[in-house]
Amino acid sequence: MTVKIEERLRHAELAKKVITAEEAASFIQDGMALGLSGFTRSGDAKAVPMALVERSKNEKFKVDVYTGASLGSDIDTIMSDAGIIGKRVPFQSDSAMRGHINNGDMYYIDQHLSITAEYLRQGAMKGVDVAIIEAVAITEDGMLIPTTSVGNSPIFVKTADKVIIELNLASYPALEGMHDIYIPDNQGERGPIPLLNASDRIGTIGIPLDLDKVAGIVITNQEDSESAIVPPDAETDQIASHLLGFLRNEIKEGRLTEELAPMQSGVGSVANAVLHGMLDSEFKDLEVYSEVLQDAVFDLIDAGKVKFASGCSTTLSQEKMESVYHNLEKYKEKVLLRPQEISNHPELIRRMGLIAINTALELDIYGNVNSTHVSGTKMMNGIGGSGDFTRNSRVSIFVTKSYAKGGKISSVVPFVSHVDHTEHDVDVIVTEQGYADLRGLAPRERAALIIENCAHPKFKSALNAYVEEANARGGQTPHVLEKAFEFHTNLAKYGQMLTPELEEVK
Amino acid sequence: MTVKIEERLRHAELAKKVITAEEAASFIQDGMALGLSGFTRSGDAKAVPMALVERSKNEKFKVDVYTGASLGSDIDTIMSDAGIIGKRVPFQSDSAMRGHINNGDMYYIDQHLSITAEYLRQGAMKGVDVAIIEAVAITEDGMLIPTTSVGNSPIFVKTADKVIIELNLASYPALEGMHDIYIPDNQGERGPIPLLNASDRIGTIGIPLDLDKVAGIVITNQEDSESAIVPPDAETDQIASHLLGFLRNEIKEGRLTEELAPMQSGVGSVANAVLHGMLDSEFKDLEVYSEVLQDAVFDLIDAGKVKFASGCSTTLSQEKMESVYHNLEKYKEKVLLRPQEISNHPELIRRMGLIAINTALELDIYGNVNSTHVSGTKMMNGIGGSGDFTRNSRVSIFVTKSYAKGGKISSVVPFVSHVDHTEHDVDVIVTEQGYADLRGLAPRERAALIIENCAHPKFKSALNAYVEEANARGGQTPHVLEKAFEFHTNLAKYGQMLTPELEEVK
Repeated sequence: MTVKIEERLRHAELAKKVITAEEAASFIQDGMALGLSGFTRSGDAKAVPMALVERSKNEKFKVDVYTGASLGSDIDTIMSDAGIIGKRVPFQSDSAMRGHINNGDMYYIDQHLSITAEYLRQGAMKGVDVAIIEAVAITEDGMLIPTTSVGNSPIFVKTADKVIIELNLASYPALEGMHDIYIPDNQGERGPIPLLNASDRIGTIGIPLDLDKVAGIVITNQEDSESAIVPPDAETDQIASHLLGFLRNEIKEGRLTEELAPMQSGVGSVANAVLHGMLDSEFKDLEVYSEVLQDAVFDLIDAGKVKFASGCSTTLSQEKMESVYHNLEKYKEKVLLRPQEISNHPELIRRMGLIAINTALELDIYGNVNSTHVSGTKMMNGIGGSGDFTRNSRVSIFVTKSYAKGGKISSVVPFVSHVDHTEHDVDVIVTEQGYADLRGLAPRERAALIIENCAHPKFKSALNAYVEEANARGGQTPHVLEKAFEFHTNLAKYGQMLTPELEEVK
Repeated sequence: MTVKIEERLRHAELAKKVITAEEAASFIQDGMALGLSGFTRSGDAKAVPMALVERSKNEKFKVDVYTGASLGSDIDTIMSDAGIIGKRVPFQSDSAMRGHINNGDMYYIDQHLSITAEYLRQGAMKGVDVAIIEAVAITEDGMLIPTTSVGNSPIFVKTADKVIIELNLASYPALEGMHDIYIPDNQGERGPIPLLNASDRIGTIGIPLDLDKVAGIVITNQEDSESAIVPPDAETDQIASHLLGFLRNEIKEGRLTEELAPMQSGVGSVANAVLHGMLDSEFKDLEVYSEVLQDAVFDLIDAGKVKFASGCSTTLSQEKMESVYHNLEKYKEKVLLRPQEISNHPELIRRMGLIAINTALELDIYGNVNSTHVSGTKMMNGIGGSGDFTRNSRVSIFVTKSYAKGGKISSVVPFVSHVDHTEHDVDVIVTEQGYADLRGLAPRERAALIIENCAHPKFKSALNAYVEEANARGGQTPHVLEKAFEFHTNLAKYGQMLTPELEEVK
């Protein structure tokens, strides 16, 4: 791509503020909180964080790092390995960083992704000192046009003391016009958010800049990282098929039509596979109102199945990036990117009545879901937007394979080792074994149905034995507390959730 | 009170539909779902449920009972003792019924109180066959004027096949005009809810009736039950004082002004005591946007501290009932009652930025809260609206005494035995020991602060020992899973959460 900088940096005064990444990094001081653009490896600030890591080789400091969600370009790896992060907020999915978090080298605050902006607006957590935001362009009238994600960039820009812009020449000019930036007023001073449909435009095409706060513009030239999605397999296909079965039954019962309702789908391979499953379905004129738009959404647009998709980020495989970003004009009438507090806003999710599809790490016989912690202690990625969508959707669906680690681990356990979504918020569970519709069921009814329809056969007798012993003790939600985590303590002891004696029998 | 029925039953055609409670009860068949008015012992249908219990002496049947929340007049006791309830939805707080639930004699579905209406509107749970709704009047144009609660009555009336009205001559005519009935359209077909302030009127003064569905009007004459609030004591005063300390600090930090923000306060003695604590504070021009208006709210109105209070129900002590209901005209400009899906609506709670104050039954060192289950198994009351408010508020505060049962039980435990509110949703914890502001803190930081500021001194060394052992194992949220419920298993074994050896030392 031949790029003329003046076509990207169209504001006369700001054009004078071009600096190097090193200069930009020099504005950052020990103890500051940085607000970085970036959501699911897309649209992240790339050069200044790297320059900051360089600086750390000769200087000791720590900064707090706030983002939209996960960063690409190994930035979370490199920054956490450099030991320069105090707190990381509100999401990460980086395996090196995870190690540092779980070792206690750094703190991680796991927040609903719609809420960080409210905390910042209120001043209820440490404010952003420096926002570092990737842009595809800066307009004549001083608006920052984000790249492939919006995330928390608008609130970072609005509340930060200083703003550094990374103008990325490798990003696609046609992204301009694909964003809709709406920033709510303070709580107690705001009106309704005037959005009724996924396709509604309610804001501006870019993030308004306060020129006095812009400390510098760094010119970069680096593509986003590709997404780390694993392609569908036989079991994710089965999950998709059961989920479609559930949706077909909703239509049969008159609760939905073939247009369904706006769909949200969590990030990850299982959720992506589920959307892929819709390619060959009878459903049509679908709308997506989601957080992240993955490959499957664009495949569904190409197939004429999805008529509009709204998100706060795209995360694409290398192959899909090429076909999407080189044909952006084609998608521009059908795709919008919004701030994450709008893509994930309770008001809008409840109003539109979304179908929310998210991935469980572990679930229990009563329908509580763990999205974040391995064996209750070690952080995987974070809750992300799953809570925003689950709590407020029309129907909240969790998908997962019924087992992990080649059958050593059951995804269905007596008591989840960490609760991210309570029994009050989980409507439907889908595994490759089948689905359990928990709506209108009391806990004891749920336990029977989840084990019967969703647990892997290998674990059913152990789960049923637990239920039997628990039921004998009574209660609304029967448990044998001294054995509630036996699956997990077995795993720690034997490397598998069943005891060696039980494993033998299977 | 001398009452002329024609002043209460002002619709000519409906006036012909007066029947006895026995006749009304005869419309109910085995397996039906009933939608009863009533919320926190207020405004409940009284005569027809009793007539149904009478019928059950000669006939075997079961019905599902949906309400706003808890019923007064011992109706939950009498119906559950009669064995005629299949499922109870979405709240109860009756000790006899609780026994039946925990024995497995009947099912209870514990729902967020804002969500039941959505499920019914969607048809996502068994629909209401017969709605039985208490009224103070039926207007000339066929509107049902509710009494002391609105609760779920509008959605019951709208979706039921048949409607039975209990016109209660003992209720106060001045209640007419105190209600604001707004019923959202279906999800996906609705616009924003046009409410910006606690005092906004957005609906009608009564519930519109479909005359064809009205199966009969039963004339009754029975007062509401009084509330079961326990007066403040030294420890609830301390909780109130710490909470005021937190709020004063919010003002000092510039996050709030002396008018605070609209306040929600959960049902119960502790929450009532906390509001009482505001009587002698400097706070002024307060607004209440809550679920239930208890004695303290009216005291604050009398004291000129609260300028407006919106709820979906009132629940008052005998003494307060007399002073409030005999002076309704005085309160009418300052109080509104709404449907519970509006009083508890995520859209409005987030928009107005409420201060949410709810009671915890148990909480853990990481800030997870149990509102419902004793030792994780036995149901107390239900989650009520605490989740609706907590998740969407400006700041979500949980209050509780740090101990129970004379010190046998610690309210702060290593791992809550049931999770109703996750670590993502709990901002501040207040006990008589002090408060812990968890905003912006990672789990390990929270554990230290909660134990230090909120746990009872008697339990601190056991809690710290747990933390120490857990921290040695690492993780984002360190735990020793095989000991996570030791406080609870000790309680089952020894009648106290500490082992006899540790109890000895204290």
